[in-house]
Amino acid sequence: MKRKMYLAGPEVFRPDAAALGAKKKALCERYGFTGLFPFDSEVGAVPAGERADWAIYRSNAALMQEADCAIVNLTPFRGPSADVGSVFELGMMVGLGKRVFGYSNATTDLLSRVRQTGSVLFDDEDRVWRDRHGMRVEDFGNADNLMIDACLAEQEHPLVRVSVADGDRYRDLRGFEECLRLAAKELLTRAAPVSNRREDRA
Amino acid sequence: MKRKMYLAGPEVFRPDAAALGAKKKALCERYGFTGLFPFDSEVGAVPAGERADWAIYRSNAALMQEADCAIVNLTPFRGPSADVGSVFELGMMVGLGKRVFGYSNATTDLLSRVRQTGSVLFDDEDRVWRDRHGMRVEDFGNADNLMIDACLAEQEHPLVRVSVADGDRYRDLRGFEECLRLAAKELLTRAAPVSNRREDRA
Repeated sequence: MKRKMYLAGPEVFRPDAAALGAKKKALCERYGFTGLFPFDSEVGAVPAGERADWAIYRSNAALMQEADCAIVNLTPFRGPSADVGSVFELGMMVGLGKRVFGYSNATTDLLSRVRQTGSVLFDDEDRVWRDRHGMRVEDFGNADNLMIDACLAEQEHPLVRVSVADGDRYRDLRGFEECLRLAAKELLTRAAPVSNRREDRA
Repeated sequence: MKRKMYLAGPEVFRPDAAALGAKKKALCERYGFTGLFPFDSEVGAVPAGERADWAIYRSNAALMQEADCAIVNLTPFRGPSADVGSVFELGMMVGLGKRVFGYSNATTDLLSRVRQTGSVLFDDEDRVWRDRHGMRVEDFGNADNLMIDACLAEQEHPLVRVSVADGDRYRDLRGFEECLRLAAKELLTRAAPVSNRREDRA
């Protein structure tokens, strides 16, 4: 049976979310995965008397439980960092012990984006950058908060960064496809040699 | 043995992070919990040859595995939404099947904060609010993205919102203490009757 790939990202908020989800699912099929897109559940009927937002949460949580792995769109969203809904899902999949892949349609580091907000100063005493609230800005060369970049590094692949024109920021799928390539290499082709080695030993 | 409470939040970026962590841990003791503050691990020595950010990730992940529950500071951070590092940890704790509590030192809804950015318009056709990228802004009356509010509602308590002066935004602990009250009520006082009932049955 095909591995199931949960497809997290802020594109669920686009007017053409369903069409983009269909494109992502078609790409999944091409690389040997079955894509599970959260919008699938949003368009379903909400049970009478239930709040729509809680129903969506339960559907997405159920899809994540069902999935074997996830590709998360970590493109900066309404600020220097990724969409918190997608980041919640990244964390939940890691907590569930599943494989995660991530991409961003921006190539800049977190620090450079926070500096673009214009209110970041270098603290000579502590040798760190601080924002207008005095909060340290991480300077590890990461795309985002270290928990995001490092959970992917821990699984031995990087957060994929792609340069994209501003108008295509939430619809360009090259970073997504690179994650599919990584996932196919790590989860589909690697499976065979390992089982061969086990047979050799038996 | 005391339940262990993981203490997530952007205050790790403050110059006085260690002192604030000590305050949070003292409050935990008062309510019957042992607090685990991520900064504990950041000040530890990084093994030679290991990247500091990856070492911090591993330490925090280990603390979350060790914890029974978490209180997450979901105060808006560098934009209309919460700190993505804290949201990652919220998701990870949910994925690990642990109890989570959350507070925000802002009382406003997500929609009102995104509208403050000045570039949000009502889409008469779809009957939704959209930002300058055409991305729908959730309008459920939630403090943040629905995945955040709903994972707490799913555990039958709300995201605690507290009104705080701008200068105290990342150090006021009234919302944190309200989460401790909720946690003590749900996890400590409720536990006794259940174990009594088990003895009754035995």
